[in-house]
Amino acid sequence: MTQVFNFSSGPAMLPAEVLKQAQQELCDWNGLGTSVMEVSHRGKEFIQVAEEAEKDFRFLLNIPSNYKVLFCHGGGRGQFAGLPLNLLGDKTTADYVDAGYWAASAVKEAHKYCTANVIDAKTTVDGLRAVKPMSEWQLSRDAAYLHYCPNETIDGIAIHETPDFGDDVVVAADFSSTILSGPLDVSRFGVIYAGAQKNIGPAGLTLVIVREDLLGKAHKACPSILDYSVLNDNDSMFNTPPTFAWYLSGLVFKWLRNNGGVAQMDKINQQKAELLYGVIDASDFYRNDVAQANRSRMNVPFQLADSNLDKLFLEESFAAGLHALKGHRVVGGMRASIYNAMPLEGVQALTAFMTDFERRHG
Amino acid sequence: MTQVFNFSSGPAMLPAEVLKQAQQELCDWNGLGTSVMEVSHRGKEFIQVAEEAEKDFRFLLNIPSNYKVLFCHGGGRGQFAGLPLNLLGDKTTADYVDAGYWAASAVKEAHKYCTANVIDAKTTVDGLRAVKPMSEWQLSRDAAYLHYCPNETIDGIAIHETPDFGDDVVVAADFSSTILSGPLDVSRFGVIYAGAQKNIGPAGLTLVIVREDLLGKAHKACPSILDYSVLNDNDSMFNTPPTFAWYLSGLVFKWLRNNGGVAQMDKINQQKAELLYGVIDASDFYRNDVAQANRSRMNVPFQLADSNLDKLFLEESFAAGLHALKGHRVVGGMRASIYNAMPLEGVQALTAFMTDFERRHG
Repeated sequence: MTQVFNFSSGPAMLPAEVLKQAQQELCDWNGLGTSVMEVSHRGKEFIQVAEEAEKDFRFLLNIPSNYKVLFCHGGGRGQFAGLPLNLLGDKTTADYVDAGYWAASAVKEAHKYCTANVIDAKTTVDGLRAVKPMSEWQLSRDAAYLHYCPNETIDGIAIHETPDFGDDVVVAADFSSTILSGPLDVSRFGVIYAGAQKNIGPAGLTLVIVREDLLGKAHKACPSILDYSVLNDNDSMFNTPPTFAWYLSGLVFKWLRNNGGVAQMDKINQQKAELLYGVIDASDFYRNDVAQANRSRMNVPFQLADSNLDKLFLEESFAAGLHALKGHRVVGGMRASIYNAMPLEGVQALTAFMTDFERRHG
Repeated sequence: MTQVFNFSSGPAMLPAEVLKQAQQELCDWNGLGTSVMEVSHRGKEFIQVAEEAEKDFRFLLNIPSNYKVLFCHGGGRGQFAGLPLNLLGDKTTADYVDAGYWAASAVKEAHKYCTANVIDAKTTVDGLRAVKPMSEWQLSRDAAYLHYCPNETIDGIAIHETPDFGDDVVVAADFSSTILSGPLDVSRFGVIYAGAQKNIGPAGLTLVIVREDLLGKAHKACPSILDYSVLNDNDSMFNTPPTFAWYLSGLVFKWLRNNGGVAQMDKINQQKAELLYGVIDASDFYRNDVAQANRSRMNVPFQLADSNLDKLFLEESFAAGLHALKGHRVVGGMRASIYNAMPLEGVQALTAFMTDFERRHG
């Protein structure tokens, strides 16, 4: 059959080698005669999986030793509540930068727990959608933390700057769609979190990296499953963790280590993005309306000049093995999500198809 | 290799046929050339999986139409917070029956949100551990709901009675370790919840069955991922659900339907329990200290008269392909969890081993 490249925004493509290994050992893992899904999270075999996954994740992102890594339930949406519940302490305000759909969703949840001071960072540059530089973000004095989302999956907008607001500002960021796609200076953040289903593994697992001095401040109404201290004190096994997702994420981490780590991913992701944006920019047939400096390398939304061709584009691309290119319902058009697991060949196949489609219908 | 029977209490054994099917289609599902893990939860292919799983689950338990089924993150522990956050309304008290480890854990979490009026139902009958009959439970007048756990995974204790407290009492129950093991009159409950990892599927998914008149009362501090109304309004896709666990649970539901449903499970589970307790009771070498009426059919803890033999028992049973028989750390000894996926042959193999072990070491 045709080689399939899956541009889904999440759950998303996983490395083919990882899936193959998971398939091979699905019914007989580790020589146990059982599936990894069937063993206790407290048994020595799974504990080893869990510990290795954390070790590899720490290695990949060079996470400083004063940061804890938590493997949680509940997705990014869970952390939208988890953040204020863990970080507010005796404060009542937090700063929330709004630059897109997910940042705004985090604000909505935060309002349950505090006054979310919204910093509207959306702007335009030469008519293109953009984000105000960090130097223009007006932080409030009494905020417990500053939250932002460095990559907006739906809007195709990214904030590539690294925060540098001084030691007093606790920066919390939703890295769901961009974690592990390149180097990351963890030390600039108080909390980094990411739903696994974009750049890590299967849906149902969420990773939280939290600076240890921020532990122990959870609100008394914080559900235990979202309480960073409870999770940390129990090695993320206060309740049964999503073991299969944890295991599979561990395989992805090994795959990343074997393939040059985030430095190499950074390079390939840059190549992929340049290739795709290049084809879009070189044509009047396709259009992306995000300013250069804020273009996402992970999620590339684009429009056809003639939206009457959308349906045909989707049918023909699917037939060519290029799946899940339909844009998010709130923005329409197309979107290609090109996370780590998408090989350069996938983007080459997409751009070749786009060029051919334009030739035939342009 | 030796046929393996896995007595893990959860994550637990899955039906061999289900795992085989999952393995076969892990890299190419539904003819898509991608894994079910890689497709969007909002795509038509996954929506069909999701809807069929719910339909089959409803069929198996004969769930009345005025009940909603939610597929959630967060495990049973998540629901320990979810219950008070959703059900208290303007009340401040709830009744909690304590008959074991998990019931007591639910109380601890509930105290964050309300006054949990604890009904201590633990008792003894002829020196054996037992639970007071429901007729002796002293309900308080102003409780928003009554919570109990019908099967205590760690204690090996079950409450087999069906609640009948009249229409005014909202009964909420943690069915994590006993759901689908036999018929269940859903109409007697306000909320039934169950972590998937014992009798349903992989860890990371939680099922909630909630009577629709109980929706819409969530506390304003309830995280959206635990808010029954939010989940219901979004068909359990307010945030990305644990799709692979949902898919696999759907396969388990199909397997149950193809194997006689809960009526047939009920019969086999009864046979399995009688066989295992029979061997324990017929010997002075093994011991189970739970009163007949409250013995769990799912989790059978047992002790060796001479605990010095524990280590040898575990080594030899493991070598014989009988895995994960070590008792929970808080009670010690042995425990055999014999959920739906454990075939009668597994219990036969276990009892044959036990008899032989006793012959050799008794």
